Amino acid sequence: MAVMGHVSLVGAGPGDPGLLTRRAIARLRASDLVLYDALIDDRILRYARRAQRFFVGKRAGRHAMTQTAIEMLMIRAARRGRRVVRLKGGDPFVFGRGGEEALALQHAGIPYDVVPGVSSAIAAPASAGIPVTHRGVASAFLVVSGHEDEAFASAISQLQPNGVTVVVLMGLGRSAAIACRLIDRGWSRGTPAAIIVDASRPQQQVWRGTLDGLASDAVEIDGFGAGTIVIGDVVSIGLQSTADAGRIAQAQRSRA
Amino acid sequence: MAVMGHVSLVGAGPGDPGLLTRRAIARLRASDLVLYDALIDDRILRYARRAQRFFVGKRAGRHAMTQTAIEMLMIRAARRGRRVVRLKGGDPFVFGRGGEEALALQHAGIPYDVVPGVSSAIAAPASAGIPVTHRGVASAFLVVSGHEDEAFASAISQLQPNGVTVVVLMGLGRSAAIACRLIDRGWSRGTPAAIIVDASRPQQQVWRGTLDGLASDAVEIDGFGAGTIVIGDVVSIGLQSTADAGRIAQAQRSRA
Repeated sequence: MAVMGHVSLVGAGPGDPGLLTRRAIARLRASDLVLYDALIDDRILRYARRAQRFFVGKRAGRHAMTQTAIEMLMIRAARRGRRVVRLKGGDPFVFGRGGEEALALQHAGIPYDVVPGVSSAIAAPASAGIPVTHRGVASAFLVVSGHEDEAFASAISQLQPNGVTVVVLMGLGRSAAIACRLIDRGWSRGTPAAIIVDASRPQQQVWRGTLDGLASDAVEIDGFGAGTIVIGDVVSIGLQSTADAGRIAQAQRSRA
Repeated sequence: MAVMGHVSLVGAGPGDPGLLTRRAIARLRASDLVLYDALIDDRILRYARRAQRFFVGKRAGRHAMTQTAIEMLMIRAARRGRRVVRLKGGDPFVFGRGGEEALALQHAGIPYDVVPGVSSAIAAPASAGIPVTHRGVASAFLVVSGHEDEAFASAISQLQPNGVTVVVLMGLGRSAAIACRLIDRGWSRGTPAAIIVDASRPQQQVWRGTLDGLASDAVEIDGFGAGTIVIGDVVSIGLQSTADAGRIAQAQRSRA
């Protein structure tokens, strides 16, 4: 009988390979099978140099593989002794179905671990100079998926208008509908809002405006990258995007 | 005149050095001055092998240095050409006063960058087997500071009872008061709750119970480590703590 393998549910962070954790890199290097989602950077996949790599995410709105099929594939591979990495954007437990996959592995008796990642919910706003909390401005933030109208409306109905920072993940294609929902719930039309696309990558784009602008579809952003929407007064505290990052890395190399 | 230095606001993650990002390690290695907060692991500080290291956090309830003094120190050191790392637990923009420090640096014309970290808000629950979101259980989570009663009460007053997962950071010493606030607001006494202390470290402790248990001070946890409180049905989805992590790391070494 083969040695039992294992599965690591690994967060890949927001995109920039510099935001991978040491443990994520170690798991990728030791893996012989990687199952990865959409929007995972090639420079990250390259760490898994000895592994077979399968795309199991969504492309053009279609799943490459069902959730059950992904779980069965992980379980079978681990039973055959393989070291599997299930690689997810951001953190595996933030809308990543990581909890479902961990439960499936636990029920099947497969050894597994979870390697938390830098969540786009916090890092995408940060890369546009927006702190999700700020003394005197926001003492709490809500993270919600914008993917399904009903779930979004239900989460938002829990909130008093303009109370806390709201971070919407997976809502890029529905930004106008999301803004309308908030305005309908009583949020001020002038509430600052921002969209960050391809956060932490060279092609990062940032749109800044208000809920009203978002609702009227006045957003000019190209492409179909991963998008994060931030709504609240923290958007306008006046920090610039952290465009110094490149300069600082360069300064460090030249002085090292 | 000296070459201008720079400042990096760096997130150290929840504690485990394996959850440091590549960029955090690079910034520490290149630094010549590190200003660090409480509860930063020695194994993390050791990366800054060429740096002077100053503790500027809180010990026994007292600040080692005022916020203004920390900002002035960073600015002066950068003006003298030093490469400064301001090292914070978790992520610098989640209750870390990172936004204030970034604004001070920007106003002073100091080059700076922000290196997001793995937030304890997500990683501490994860290390106890608790996903902050889970399909059919919680489609949003609120992160709030438990440090000040008034700010906590205000954030909570924005929420309908039992709607979303609530993660409370910096609330360990006030857990009974926090639970009472929620119960007063109409949250069910039977709502599952957990406290994770020293998350992701060898000495990690987890308490599981209900809001009622939390309110009646029935929590048995030793020590004064960093604590994260999670409240909501995700606490009881039935995942075990990720105790496999050690075994998996060992298996990887023996097979490498």
